[in-house]
Amino acid sequence: MEHSPRLALSNKRFTVTYTLTGTKQECLLKARDICYEQTVEFPEDLTPTGDIGNHIVGRIEDFRELSQKRFQTDISFAVESAGAELTQLLNVIFGNISLKPGIKVEKVNLPAEILCLFTGPKFGQRGFRKALRVYKRPLICTALKPMGLSAQDLAGQASLFALGGIDIIKDDHGLADQPFCPFEERVQRCSEAVRNANQKTGKSSIYAPNITAPANRVLERARFAKKNAAGALLITPGLTGLNSMRLLAQEQVFGLPLMSHPAFWGSFVTSPHSGLSHYFLYGQLMRLAGADAVIYPHSGGRFSFSREECTDIVRGCNDNLGNLKAIFPAPGGGMTRDRLHDMLSMYGRDFILLIGGELHRYGGNLSENSRRLVEMLEKA
Amino acid sequence: MEHSPRLALSNKRFTVTYTLTGTKQECLLKARDICYEQTVEFPEDLTPTGDIGNHIVGRIEDFRELSQKRFQTDISFAVESAGAELTQLLNVIFGNISLKPGIKVEKVNLPAEILCLFTGPKFGQRGFRKALRVYKRPLICTALKPMGLSAQDLAGQASLFALGGIDIIKDDHGLADQPFCPFEERVQRCSEAVRNANQKTGKSSIYAPNITAPANRVLERARFAKKNAAGALLITPGLTGLNSMRLLAQEQVFGLPLMSHPAFWGSFVTSPHSGLSHYFLYGQLMRLAGADAVIYPHSGGRFSFSREECTDIVRGCNDNLGNLKAIFPAPGGGMTRDRLHDMLSMYGRDFILLIGGELHRYGGNLSENSRRLVEMLEKA
Repeated sequence: MEHSPRLALSNKRFTVTYTLTGTKQECLLKARDICYEQTVEFPEDLTPTGDIGNHIVGRIEDFRELSQKRFQTDISFAVESAGAELTQLLNVIFGNISLKPGIKVEKVNLPAEILCLFTGPKFGQRGFRKALRVYKRPLICTALKPMGLSAQDLAGQASLFALGGIDIIKDDHGLADQPFCPFEERVQRCSEAVRNANQKTGKSSIYAPNITAPANRVLERARFAKKNAAGALLITPGLTGLNSMRLLAQEQVFGLPLMSHPAFWGSFVTSPHSGLSHYFLYGQLMRLAGADAVIYPHSGGRFSFSREECTDIVRGCNDNLGNLKAIFPAPGGGMTRDRLHDMLSMYGRDFILLIGGELHRYGGNLSENSRRLVEMLEKA
Repeated sequence: MEHSPRLALSNKRFTVTYTLTGTKQECLLKARDICYEQTVEFPEDLTPTGDIGNHIVGRIEDFRELSQKRFQTDISFAVESAGAELTQLLNVIFGNISLKPGIKVEKVNLPAEILCLFTGPKFGQRGFRKALRVYKRPLICTALKPMGLSAQDLAGQASLFALGGIDIIKDDHGLADQPFCPFEERVQRCSEAVRNANQKTGKSSIYAPNITAPANRVLERARFAKKNAAGALLITPGLTGLNSMRLLAQEQVFGLPLMSHPAFWGSFVTSPHSGLSHYFLYGQLMRLAGADAVIYPHSGGRFSFSREECTDIVRGCNDNLGNLKAIFPAPGGGMTRDRLHDMLSMYGRDFILLIGGELHRYGGNLSENSRRLVEMLEKA
């Protein structure tokens, strides 16, 4: 085909590792297809030779058998194909091919030329610990719930949790801006309740409101939360768009840790053969997009993540990713006290224990139940 | 459990139809789980009675067997649980349960109280036709490609397509703001090329640039495109967040038809058992979010949608949805001329034929190839 013009390319490339499902022949074709589909979107025979054919089209760097009908391939792309924005980077990694079954993104390997575009988590594990002044044990987070309670009732709960010494008291992710519990009233009341409790306990518990909203309102809600002394923010990037979270992380004025919630984007991880790996979605991608902690359902709770998948998330939160800080895995989803020992042995100290409904059991004395949980973790 | 306070609820509810996979017993449990997981996120025994238990918790309105190990259920939710925002509406429809396999959203039934929150598509099928002055045949759309060409080269292509009478000349969805083809230069050159061609042909071809970008830049790019006489906009809501598209549709100043691209969110539709139905994702949801046309891969091309799934999309684009306009299905993805007859018999006249690489074949005379295609459709 016609020869393409010379492009001012740096020759720097980033690499994506994909797991492919099918026979060897099918998977070789899939790998080749990814190279074209994610870049030129042109039939191979129509693609110009020269710089486009040699550099813009993806390049298979490695192809190996994992097991029967499972193969893995490393495909590299010119850094220029991703422009300088997270949207287009993600589009090259998993745009059109998200529509094709049997392709799963395992991880990315990004050179400094791309990593320098992202400031990543502002706090990370260290910064989050410092904000809470808790250095030696797992952090403890609980959620204000259930949906339907008034701002006043939730503030009452927040007070009891803070008196009991819970570190992070977050909105349940279903608390948005409903008529029975408006966002602004809730933020004001719950922040105040936690502040008052801190004065009694001498601790640094924080309230983390849910600012998930249409993109144009996320910043507005974050500002309101900051102004009203919230200590962190909860956001569901699957609903707001990833860049709403990234913008907050980059905005110097806010200075609040961000916790990402996994709602709506679960379909990326429910198939073992398609979508995104736990490592990539909850680790690498959330760090690129600025989360300081990533919430996900721990194995054995009321969701279906396996133990291995949870371990992969921990690695994704901690593995080297240029200058981007390590972040907290925050496993939750139906956790109970009798599972604590197991969680500690699996996660060590550097995680956020997310425990909700369980604290409402045992007589329903939230403050006392919280205090006992904190003690258990301090002794562990 | 304790009795919850009385909430000022309207008693209006919206309904979601889910398909569930498993034994009858498993699916009954899943249905019940959805009621709690999507609202109070509380164990059933801890959920307060009264208004929360009776109205906030989802309600199983119907449960029926579809086939062996496939069941369907209609679950209703209080309109107030969705607040007044698309983010929270989507969160109630498919938030946490997106993380659980074997649950698929088939469709939603929204009352006027929710539909009135969304202006939906600004143009719809009629408005889009009017903008193009094409009333009796399918609209024809092609894409500027491949990635790697300069703005000048793409403008040359745009000119040839417009001279050949193609209605909509869109950016390939991988054209973002790369150094070898900056967004602003591309928009200026391609718009001008199409305008000049229109002066020669007397037709109303339009250029539709890709404005997919981080949320804070989408509006900026849309403004630039409008100012530079673009005729429509291409956006990938999976990458920008749905609300970026919705905002554009609601902004009165823009007045440009919006075409949504399916990249990145493919994982919602690759499993027959989990995720979102084609009807809901490409029909109902895209209309709520303001798309005037929805791009997707037609069956039998280089993607894997079935014929039935494509028909479901057409229904989703056209079925009654309050006052929200009907929108264009825009099937593409490796379409060839010899499939035209079949597509016409399946889609009738009211669709946008998306045809890319194929026009570059047959000697590569883009203008002549385009003209022949338009003629074929006018005679059909």
